[in-house]
Amino acid sequence: MGELLLSDYVERSKERVVRTLVRWLQIPSISAQAEHTGDVATSADFCAALMSDAGLKKVEVLPTGSEGNAGAPAVYGEWLGAGKDAPTILIYGHHDVQPVDPLGQWRSPPFEPDVSATEIKARGVSDDKGQVLMQIEAIHGLFTEREHLPVNVKFLVEGEEEVGSPHFEQLLRSEGERLKADVVVVSDTEMVAPDIPSTVLSMRGLVTFDVVLRTGSSDLHSGIWGGTVPNAALTAARMVASLHDGHGRVTLPGFYDRVRELSAQEARSLVEVPFDEANFCRQAGVAFLEGEEGRSPYERTGARPTAEVVGIHSGYGDAGMKTIVPAVANFKVALRLVADQRPEEVATAFRQWVAERAPKGVQVTLTPHGSVAPLSTSADHPAVRILSGAIERTWGRRPLFTRGGGSGPEESLGRVLAAPVIFLGVALPEDNFHAPNERLDLHQLWRGIIASGELLVGLADLPNKP
Amino acid sequence: MGELLLSDYVERSKERVVRTLVRWLQIPSISAQAEHTGDVATSADFCAALMSDAGLKKVEVLPTGSEGNAGAPAVYGEWLGAGKDAPTILIYGHHDVQPVDPLGQWRSPPFEPDVSATEIKARGVSDDKGQVLMQIEAIHGLFTEREHLPVNVKFLVEGEEEVGSPHFEQLLRSEGERLKADVVVVSDTEMVAPDIPSTVLSMRGLVTFDVVLRTGSSDLHSGIWGGTVPNAALTAARMVASLHDGHGRVTLPGFYDRVRELSAQEARSLVEVPFDEANFCRQAGVAFLEGEEGRSPYERTGARPTAEVVGIHSGYGDAGMKTIVPAVANFKVALRLVADQRPEEVATAFRQWVAERAPKGVQVTLTPHGSVAPLSTSADHPAVRILSGAIERTWGRRPLFTRGGGSGPEESLGRVLAAPVIFLGVALPEDNFHAPNERLDLHQLWRGIIASGELLVGLADLPNKP
Repeated sequence: MGELLLSDYVERSKERVVRTLVRWLQIPSISAQAEHTGDVATSADFCAALMSDAGLKKVEVLPTGSEGNAGAPAVYGEWLGAGKDAPTILIYGHHDVQPVDPLGQWRSPPFEPDVSATEIKARGVSDDKGQVLMQIEAIHGLFTEREHLPVNVKFLVEGEEEVGSPHFEQLLRSEGERLKADVVVVSDTEMVAPDIPSTVLSMRGLVTFDVVLRTGSSDLHSGIWGGTVPNAALTAARMVASLHDGHGRVTLPGFYDRVRELSAQEARSLVEVPFDEANFCRQAGVAFLEGEEGRSPYERTGARPTAEVVGIHSGYGDAGMKTIVPAVANFKVALRLVADQRPEEVATAFRQWVAERAPKGVQVTLTPHGSVAPLSTSADHPAVRILSGAIERTWGRRPLFTRGGGSGPEESLGRVLAAPVIFLGVALPEDNFHAPNERLDLHQLWRGIIASGELLVGLADLPNKP
Repeated sequence: MGELLLSDYVERSKERVVRTLVRWLQIPSISAQAEHTGDVATSADFCAALMSDAGLKKVEVLPTGSEGNAGAPAVYGEWLGAGKDAPTILIYGHHDVQPVDPLGQWRSPPFEPDVSATEIKARGVSDDKGQVLMQIEAIHGLFTEREHLPVNVKFLVEGEEEVGSPHFEQLLRSEGERLKADVVVVSDTEMVAPDIPSTVLSMRGLVTFDVVLRTGSSDLHSGIWGGTVPNAALTAARMVASLHDGHGRVTLPGFYDRVRELSAQEARSLVEVPFDEANFCRQAGVAFLEGEEGRSPYERTGARPTAEVVGIHSGYGDAGMKTIVPAVANFKVALRLVADQRPEEVATAFRQWVAERAPKGVQVTLTPHGSVAPLSTSADHPAVRILSGAIERTWGRRPLFTRGGGSGPEESLGRVLAAPVIFLGVALPEDNFHAPNERLDLHQLWRGIIASGELLVGLADLPNKP
């Protein structure tokens, strides 16, 4: 990759980039926990400073939400010097991070970055601060090498992605004019492997629910009442156990009705993704795989909808034993959707499923927690072709097309801004997104900066500029 | 009941007995809470003084446990003046009490007894201080009326019953010679109703297990991995849901093989116990009942073995949502046994059940937490006939035979002392054992003192004194 535009810039900048990233990672910007509200604000300010340093203009921390329902701040910055006839690219990422529990499983403290020659370990390093910095550094590098970008660039770095982006769509709508773009570039995804570059063509949608079951007014003595009163733990377990049938298919009514099958091209690409089950299991830290019968693991994580039980809690859970019949149980379900499923239909199906399965006389409280539609971009889109070229020049290999299993605000971006969404993500499956010991491969980071530069330059040739 | 031996004594003593009980109830002898260790000791001293005042000899507070693992003190007292040829009766009760949470649901402070003409409300008043005082007052009354008892009497009042009697069997073994008895009388159970006297013929055994399932080395992102890796919450829920079959029967291999069916006499007696389902549900605080098909609620809580899920915990349980695939799950099971099930066989069956149901590749950690055998005394035993007579003379009605659902130290008493265990308990289902607003019906207390006197006198005729 020696001849690429930003190769030398990256070589010169490594030490500084690592130092900068480490400082950002020291800010525990956990959006899910109220005690870190100040840290998320500090992280936004830090991100704004990075953007200004890189040469972006009109950098601004954007508050979200409304009075009495404040959200976490996003950060905006732009450079529109390429002129009206050049395409405008909106780059999206987020500066908030996941909670760190279970803390005991971290080998180094999550907010004291552990830097080696090949990787950085810290919460948020790959999801998503490292990838945001990658994009900012590409801009920085282009300005260093050229003093001028061939495209207009806008940055939008969100602060609530890890809690489901509750105020993001509102922000996109209120700032719609300023955020207008021809293409959205997202850097918050993974590649197949360091030597097998890939790009994501779709993201799954998400519908989540919290379910509370109450079978009695209080916990009862299991000796006196056991065997005759309903048990909330058992009731919850039975409902959860019936979420899938014997073939691993989700039992919500009509759940698969709108699921779009893979195109021939995508099906071919998915088959090309090398799959080593032993290695896959090792990366996941599991001993075996399970899921929908008759579908490959890659299909199951990207092209098929799923239902995961995120948690189940009922009764006594501390040390030792307490002989009770629990009266209350809680379980949380995350349903991942694929094109062309509709979140509102799936939510209705889930409510119906709960109503049918909860025994009569059990009090049910259902709380939805956010809803995201699935997103899908065609492999034939010119922006995808330009991205593929940038990745191929950087990694020396044509990228495979994959499907993103996660669900983010990308769908809102594409829909509200009416722009195609493409994915330049350099994290790896072994980077422990959302888990202890999150890491970022530095070689991927360096390549990512170079590829981001290639992409921005390439997008100058985007046809059909409106 | 005017002609019974202790009728006049009780009439004369009511005010004094209530005053004494109130003072004892003011001592918060909560054995489960370390901050009340001193109160449990004070309660033991108070109980010892009551025994001495009643005329018992060699009264002694017995420490339990060992150095570095001290238990709560028991209280011993005896009167052996009836001579070697008279039967010896060991009377068992406990002076410790349950914790008081949820405190907000008490209508009067739990350790400030609320006395009316018909009842006393306070923690421990029926479970078990009131019933222990009932037995002590019977001795006191007999000495007042006769100066001499027709049987030898030993008292053992434990201080750890509410925490599972961890040092009780050790105490029985080390004090075995002193505690030797021909019959054990327990006063720590309920009757069906004030006008429907009853006596318990059995207590259930108990086998408990804590199960930890590990499906992966850490929680995973549900978007990236969901649909293809095993989910610990789902795995636990599936196992728990399969603990019973479609007929409410426990699925452990051979679980029912040794279960003794009710004798014809007991079956008739159980049918006579009035059952008002609406009232039963109201007392339990539930909207409906469930359990083993084809068995009545009374059979299910006393005469049939059961499996209760005491708790299930896996994954995210706090506010909001965290989109993970949980890697670890825990569930706790309490198996209640009936005669002639054997705890060690049931424990083996549970281990086998877990091994068969845990998917291959899931790491299982099984921890047993205590084991109690079921206890059963024949309705034909001479001591049960004498007890029935004493109850019938006092309440004016032949007692029904019931089954105790719980599992206490009674089994150890019967087994270690090799003596039959009979139950003279006067608490009522509405007395709120272990719950807020615990109460004792004073009419039951007065009748209980009289019946205890009748029982001791009656037991002088126990045949087959060894």
